[in-house]
Amino acid sequence: MLNVSIAGGSGYVGGELMRLIDGHPTLTLKSVSSERLAGRFLHQQHPHLRSGEPRKFVKMEDIDKGDILILALPHGEAVKNIDLFTGLAERVIDCSADFRLDSPDVYKEYYGHDHVAPDWLQRFRYGLPESNRKYVRDARYVSGVGCNATATNLALLPLIRAGIVTPTTHVVADIKAGSSESGKSATTSGQHAERAQVMRSYAPTGHRHAAEVEQVTGLNNVHMSITAVDAVRGAMATVHTLVDLDLDERSLWGIYRDFVADEPFVRIVHERGGAHRHPDPKTLLGTNFADIGWSYDKNKGRLVALAAIDNLMKGAAGSAIQSLNLMCGFEEDAGLGFTGIWPH
Amino acid sequence: MLNVSIAGGSGYVGGELMRLIDGHPTLTLKSVSSERLAGRFLHQQHPHLRSGEPRKFVKMEDIDKGDILILALPHGEAVKNIDLFTGLAERVIDCSADFRLDSPDVYKEYYGHDHVAPDWLQRFRYGLPESNRKYVRDARYVSGVGCNATATNLALLPLIRAGIVTPTTHVVADIKAGSSESGKSATTSGQHAERAQVMRSYAPTGHRHAAEVEQVTGLNNVHMSITAVDAVRGAMATVHTLVDLDLDERSLWGIYRDFVADEPFVRIVHERGGAHRHPDPKTLLGTNFADIGWSYDKNKGRLVALAAIDNLMKGAAGSAIQSLNLMCGFEEDAGLGFTGIWPH
Amino acid sequence: MLNVSIAGGSGYVGGELMRLIDGHPTLTLKSVSSERLAGRFLHQQHPHLRSGEPRKFVKMEDIDKGDILILALPHGEAVKNIDLFTGLAERVIDCSADFRLDSPDVYKEYYGHDHVAPDWLQRFRYGLPESNRKYVRDARYVSGVGCNATATNLALLPLIRAGIVTPTTHVVADIKAGSSESGKSATTSGQHAERAQVMRSYAPTGHRHAAEVEQVTGLNNVHMSITAVDAVRGAMATVHTLVDLDLDERSLWGIYRDFVADEPFVRIVHERGGAHRHPDPKTLLGTNFADIGWSYDKNKGRLVALAAIDNLMKGAAGSAIQSLNLMCGFEEDAGLGFTGIWPH
Amino acid sequence: MLNVSIAGGSGYVGGELMRLIDGHPTLTLKSVSSERLAGRFLHQQHPHLRSGEPRKFVKMEDIDKGDILILALPHGEAVKNIDLFTGLAERVIDCSADFRLDSPDVYKEYYGHDHVAPDWLQRFRYGLPESNRKYVRDARYVSGVGCNATATNLALLPLIRAGIVTPTTHVVADIKAGSSESGKSATTSGQHAERAQVMRSYAPTGHRHAAEVEQVTGLNNVHMSITAVDAVRGAMATVHTLVDLDLDERSLWGIYRDFVADEPFVRIVHERGGAHRHPDPKTLLGTNFADIGWSYDKNKGRLVALAAIDNLMKGAAGSAIQSLNLMCGFEEDAGLGFTGIWPH
Repeated sequence: MLNVSIAGGSGYVGGELMRLIDGHPTLTLKSVSSERLAGRFLHQQHPHLRSGEPRKFVKMEDIDKGDILILALPHGEAVKNIDLFTGLAERVIDCSADFRLDSPDVYKEYYGHDHVAPDWLQRFRYGLPESNRKYVRDARYVSGVGCNATATNLALLPLIRAGIVTPTTHVVADIKAGSSESGKSATTSGQHAERAQVMRSYAPTGHRHAAEVEQVTGLNNVHMSITAVDAVRGAMATVHTLVDLDLDERSLWGIYRDFVADEPFVRIVHERGGAHRHPDPKTLLGTNFADIGWSYDKNKGRLVALAAIDNLMKGAAGSAIQSLNLMCGFEEDAGLGFTGIWPH
Repeated sequence: MLNVSIAGGSGYVGGELMRLIDGHPTLTLKSVSSERLAGRFLHQQHPHLRSGEPRKFVKMEDIDKGDILILALPHGEAVKNIDLFTGLAERVIDCSADFRLDSPDVYKEYYGHDHVAPDWLQRFRYGLPESNRKYVRDARYVSGVGCNATATNLALLPLIRAGIVTPTTHVVADIKAGSSESGKSATTSGQHAERAQVMRSYAPTGHRHAAEVEQVTGLNNVHMSITAVDAVRGAMATVHTLVDLDLDERSLWGIYRDFVADEPFVRIVHERGGAHRHPDPKTLLGTNFADIGWSYDKNKGRLVALAAIDNLMKGAAGSAIQSLNLMCGFEEDAGLGFTGIWPH
Repeated sequence: MLNVSIAGGSGYVGGELMRLIDGHPTLTLKSVSSERLAGRFLHQQHPHLRSGEPRKFVKMEDIDKGDILILALPHGEAVKNIDLFTGLAERVIDCSADFRLDSPDVYKEYYGHDHVAPDWLQRFRYGLPESNRKYVRDARYVSGVGCNATATNLALLPLIRAGIVTPTTHVVADIKAGSSESGKSATTSGQHAERAQVMRSYAPTGHRHAAEVEQVTGLNNVHMSITAVDAVRGAMATVHTLVDLDLDERSLWGIYRDFVADEPFVRIVHERGGAHRHPDPKTLLGTNFADIGWSYDKNKGRLVALAAIDNLMKGAAGSAIQSLNLMCGFEEDAGLGFTGIWPH
Repeated sequence: MLNVSIAGGSGYVGGELMRLIDGHPTLTLKSVSSERLAGRFLHQQHPHLRSGEPRKFVKMEDIDKGDILILALPHGEAVKNIDLFTGLAERVIDCSADFRLDSPDVYKEYYGHDHVAPDWLQRFRYGLPESNRKYVRDARYVSGVGCNATATNLALLPLIRAGIVTPTTHVVADIKAGSSESGKSATTSGQHAERAQVMRSYAPTGHRHAAEVEQVTGLNNVHMSITAVDAVRGAMATVHTLVDLDLDERSLWGIYRDFVADEPFVRIVHERGGAHRHPDPKTLLGTNFADIGWSYDKNKGRLVALAAIDNLMKGAAGSAIQSLNLMCGFEEDAGLGFTGIWPH
């Protein structure tokens, strides 16, 4: 058994990490820090964790050195003390956006300021096993993934590997996103009365996750738009492309089957009928699965690539634990093989 | 006062038409037919109509000849008896898809079968005043509009008039749609437990409303995708374009201001801050307004055009009454000038 | 035309008051104050008010003396400056809880501290026309109503007038309430992700509105519980009573018909079939109606009285304007006679 | 390993049973029947079951004799062929309402017709371990539980054991219920547009589950009302009682602690602050837990007992598997010890 501590465990990603660690066969939860909640019970913040022996948040300074440290801090907090954090554990996973990009220049372009610890950018591996498995395996430092980036990446990767989408292709990634993406902090625009039933274009252009997609896919022209909709969880990528090739359903099935063949968490959803013909995050609640699919319009030369994930799982905590499994030499799906909840 | 009858008044569009007619200064509701509900009270089907003297559904055969007849029947029903219907009133508005397209060939391409009464296609005017006002004015036969088409059209028209989008431009219209688009009939996939919190790609390619957009805009390459989300009302068009021109905010403001200058129901929403920076159907509930806006990314040469409507109003019943006002020489906004409901 | 100003117009009740005043035949909106938002446009806070000439919030000190002043301030703010406010207008309506109770002792019992201006308690009339019409008519100072109290009062009043419920009867008022009851301020527990799909017992005992019910009804044993549910608007009172009398449907119909006979906004909903057999706030969105009904179980001697309202309308702004109409000698339903929105 | 088959696996309870059996350490899913869906994949009906080897529905006649048969058929279907079903397996659990009541007379009173196989009523044990553990253990035939009954029973049992509530006490059980209680079949009143944001009194009096509560608790005066609210899962019981005794928080804590001491799935939720002071089904999604609590108003002599469950789990499939564990001599919480999903 390896022990895991979480720095910054008051948010939704922290809550999911604890659920996953509690259910993991070879991990033990050691400490969870929150400066604001230190001394309070975990289950008062995370009501799904009420069972078992009550456990309390601690101060950061009370996290002892251990096997693995996962940082679930707000963006910008991990980088400030990265030397401290990396001294606290053999392996570190940072779920924030601080170490996702390889290039300090791209970081500055998208985040609007210089990276505080640029030397560390190259030392962190981007924690999306589907694109980066061999580098995550045995890595000491792994970065988490952006949820919208992950949905887009998983929609695009099969087409890129098949050569259908090339570095110069323009792709439009239109993402629908649930309210948990905004985190747990109180905002007026996030109040139920304001947020219920919205179709709110919160980032029609300029979303930072586009940088992650361009890095992972090698594409130069990723156009991302995010619309907040009424769901708590879920990121749904509708990725629009125009293709020159003459495709057909059979070849597309082949391309997608090749892609998922050895992937424990990526599945094809492409049915001819019924309500679940295409990927939908609603069917994935609480799981680490990413469902991918497509819709092809031969007349228009148009291929729409689809990917659905649970933003807190495959888009955050789930990919982190999947990466942790690779880092530690565990089965890649250890502690992540459960079935989702339907309906909800 | 002119009298209006409604054929096929059991659905949501029918219910909205009654609300609008009841509140209209120069219209009186005469008869509402429903073969299935004849003899039952309107308010048993449409609970918002409970006030005032109770009124009943009648059989179609009991609709007397009158000034105006609005058809709110399922697609395919109006066309079957169009000679009968046009004999029942001086002016006829058909809210279904039966008479929206000018070309029988395009109809066949999108609907999969020959049009039953092709001669009538040219006699109906497409009832979107923002594109077709001069033809709707004084017309005898007007067709309703598709809700997703209307959101897309209103997003695109300012850019087309300004020459930014041209007939050969590829545009991707990614629509988010509420559950009332599916109508009131019972389906398993529409049950609350199945439909709550979905991000369901119900038409990633091949949606029929693309034909309406190409007809109205003159564009040749309209790529439409529809995703069902958890809202009862609303159609939100995120229309993605790449533009060659060198635009700026000032010129875009000018383009949009020109477009809305004489439009009673189209408004610009383009704020620098706050939760309501961009159009959102949630802010339009129950109104005939269409809010339009944009987001421009100079670096990427990318312009995202946005439009939000209430699908049952500007996308159906509201545009029908707006057209009726034009047909009858009333003020264009007669009976439609009320304020929406916030929050809800 | 009389002019109306609103002190404290940043919240949901303020937004509804503006909508109602804009649509009122004999009222003109003069000034709306908000210390925080002074200088900003009304529609930036209240997106449904975007149409027409843009108007701005002002500071309180910039509200000129006028005909009517409506206070939509947080609880406790009106009472602090009541002398100032009552000097600003001929007639004053306070929507807060500051002047709802007649007795300083009861106020202290429920609010936990002495009333700051007890002399004013007797000068304010409780603004529920259905119980207090003759005192509201021509009053200078009228208090708004509690939303949960109003649903409970309107459920109970028919039974009290008929002698079925007497001062010593124990009644249990189990209220289901929407999120707009909590107002617009940012709280963690009110965030969409936390508040969606809840059934949250936020006041199983001890809710302050019980005091209003006991005052209005004269009952001594009103037991109120409030459960927050997933709706933006609505207060639904399920009022449980045990009755000794031998009742039947005919006599109950008579009792309810007598009660609503002269009420412009109270309606009976008691159908034998269909989805709308009983009152439901969903059918009342944006209206001033209160729907009342009952369910009687002869075997158990049990009578459940039901009442549904839109908490921001009949439970706040709507009753305020209805009271204003009475105070000013207008038609009681002036500006309030519109139809609601269905579905939503 | 014991094998389990499910008769009638197309509904939500069937889907949950499969999830639980798949995750159970000593159970294997053998066959799942559905006359309508035979030959189709399980995951086409139950999208959360997409992983692993695809499995198909079979016809009832193709269910082989095995260790355990769970009936998840519509009410009235199990009883018709109970001799057949009980011949198919060593142990049978029926999730319907057919065998919940001991008395044919009570059955007739609540269900309106004679029981078809009254001899079997006494052979089935009521499958609520918290009230009936010793009879469920080693039983061959166990009946499932009603979800609303279970929430009410678990709210009341601690108070009954402590003598605070006695057989003659009048208790009012006001239940809030999610849409999954209505099952998966298509109805107009269950469509998303009709069902979203409702507070619908679908059974203000006369709900059948009251019979189950009176049977389990021994009370004579259980007054139940059910209100449908906008949630997919959840049954929340607000149980109103008036008590003569002089209680205090300490004694109540003692009573509740005694009750849950040996219960693996019942937990006390009674916090002094925060959003989660009281039980709320939202915190229990997908779990077999029942959270219970109370609110006591000494002045009014009023005790409100609260219980929250996931209606498809503790209110159906979860209690069934918990009973199965007892019947088979497994650990009572085998396969049920996972953590819920938060937020959702």
